[in-house]
Amino acid sequence: MKAVQFHGDGLEIRDVAVPEPASGEALVRVQMAGICNTDLEILQGYAGFSGTLGHEFVGRVERVQDADPWWTGQRVVGEINLGCYDAGCSWCHGGLDRHCPNRKVLGIQEKDGCMAEFLTLPVRNLLPVPDHVPDASAVFVEPLAAGFEILEQVHLEPFFHVAILGDGKLGLIINRALRYSPATLIHIGKHPEKLRLAGESGVRTMLLEDLTNEKFDVVVEATGSASGFQTALRHVKPRGTLVLKTTVSQSVPIDLTSVVVDEIEVVGSRCGRFEPALKALSQGLDVSPLIQGSFPLTEAGPAFELARAPGSLKVLLEIPSPSSI
Amino acid sequence: MKAVQFHGDGLEIRDVAVPEPASGEALVRVQMAGICNTDLEILQGYAGFSGTLGHEFVGRVERVQDADPWWTGQRVVGEINLGCYDAGCSWCHGGLDRHCPNRKVLGIQEKDGCMAEFLTLPVRNLLPVPDHVPDASAVFVEPLAAGFEILEQVHLEPFFHVAILGDGKLGLIINRALRYSPATLIHIGKHPEKLRLAGESGVRTMLLEDLTNEKFDVVVEATGSASGFQTALRHVKPRGTLVLKTTVSQSVPIDLTSVVVDEIEVVGSRCGRFEPALKALSQGLDVSPLIQGSFPLTEAGPAFELARAPGSLKVLLEIPSPSSI
Repeated sequence: MKAVQFHGDGLEIRDVAVPEPASGEALVRVQMAGICNTDLEILQGYAGFSGTLGHEFVGRVERVQDADPWWTGQRVVGEINLGCYDAGCSWCHGGLDRHCPNRKVLGIQEKDGCMAEFLTLPVRNLLPVPDHVPDASAVFVEPLAAGFEILEQVHLEPFFHVAILGDGKLGLIINRALRYSPATLIHIGKHPEKLRLAGESGVRTMLLEDLTNEKFDVVVEATGSASGFQTALRHVKPRGTLVLKTTVSQSVPIDLTSVVVDEIEVVGSRCGRFEPALKALSQGLDVSPLIQGSFPLTEAGPAFELARAPGSLKVLLEIPSPSSI
Repeated sequence: MKAVQFHGDGLEIRDVAVPEPASGEALVRVQMAGICNTDLEILQGYAGFSGTLGHEFVGRVERVQDADPWWTGQRVVGEINLGCYDAGCSWCHGGLDRHCPNRKVLGIQEKDGCMAEFLTLPVRNLLPVPDHVPDASAVFVEPLAAGFEILEQVHLEPFFHVAILGDGKLGLIINRALRYSPATLIHIGKHPEKLRLAGESGVRTMLLEDLTNEKFDVVVEATGSASGFQTALRHVKPRGTLVLKTTVSQSVPIDLTSVVVDEIEVVGSRCGRFEPALKALSQGLDVSPLIQGSFPLTEAGPAFELARAPGSLKVLLEIPSPSSI
């Protein structure tokens, strides 16, 4: 099968063997995959990953190995963290397998990803997708779940003013998730055309250059830039919360004085549970304005080019049918 | 009266006028003051303060201006933040005057401090000290309150392992406060002789050099060093909490990746309410092992020298009687 891989020197499309599902795993035929900024960072060396890229997908179960045959034929999305599920692992058995210290991560850590004709995942990681949710929505479950994660971690109270900083892919999808809170949203970015996508449903938008001394109860940092933290910090009220979403493996000079003096809470936020995201999509949340373009898997090169272009939104890879099994 | 002041160039003992209490304020005759690391940092330019130093004190009310005369003669400690108490200030009227954006701070911001024969403070800032609590205990109320603040901000659960990082003045006083939680405490420092003061009442102690990969549910960073944050971060469990106490007005290179990936919560923690600290002292909490030495106010120079010496504990200034009024 074809697979989009990284082995230390740029993106390659290789012909590789179809993976064999281990016991408890499903073999999933991938129908659509999304390109995430993390994929772009992996190409720069982030996480030291080598193998098939990609962790955002929707596909159909081809077969299962030592698992409930009900799954065969189901259209699914899949949680990307594979906990160890050893008998003694309190993370895996405490509902937090995505923090298991021995986890593998689809397309990020020791597990081939979804930018291929097939992938394998434990059936415990899968969720069936309702028929009326199109592939181009379902493929957003993973990044949308990362947005809903904020609602699980921080209590956004009705009278709160919550600023989302950054109008890239991540910021815009977080915007969609936070509309499910009763708080007042303000989306701050650098691109008027992107802020137009942020500004529906009563969300106030604002250019970063127009932001003066305003402070918010909560600031969600989704700039994708190493300097975003310090910018966000300047706009959090005393006793407020800064939700940090950006990962850049880079040390930057940071002055933490105001964190202490203003008793600010900084909440790191990564992946979330898929259920609320899938529920929102199945109830009609429209993510189609966030799609920049769509390419066949074999054109992953130009697709990554587009994804990397400044201001680019979500780029999708489509895999119409398997070439072989 | 004599006052220990800073005007941009080292510590000075000046003869200045006794301050006039404003409406609602008390004139307090200071009996004892403590030297805090913040005072040492102010001498290095922190907070841009100029005036009488000091914010840790115990004294006796000499007279009040337009306030309940009951206060006259009371021995008191005093909350150091002076909120604006303007009609529209939600901080002041919401129980968080210590975060009022227009606050003054005793000996730190636009308000002469306590290293003088007299100070003024609004009576709303004062707490009477029970007779059986000696001055040398009462003077610890402010730093001890900063320790109890942690218990107000973070729920330290009974099965938690909580590490205190740093065996200086601040770390050792936090140690005292956190013993009022049901969590298991581990105190980590660099000085065996200081860790002896940390290790009573079943608290486990550990040299920093012996710390390997151990991770804790909560790490309280009280190192007083700009590099302490990064050290603390390495020892917080995923989904754990890092309580940040150190203020150093200094940008240092920090990599926040693990905050996001491990979804760590960083809680800035500054001043706390005085009541729980005073209650603990009045119920017998013994802070006397934390006293390094005691000097008359007029020997503030040598007192600050001692306070600045590596490994020094709390240095106190005593003011036996007023020279004039």
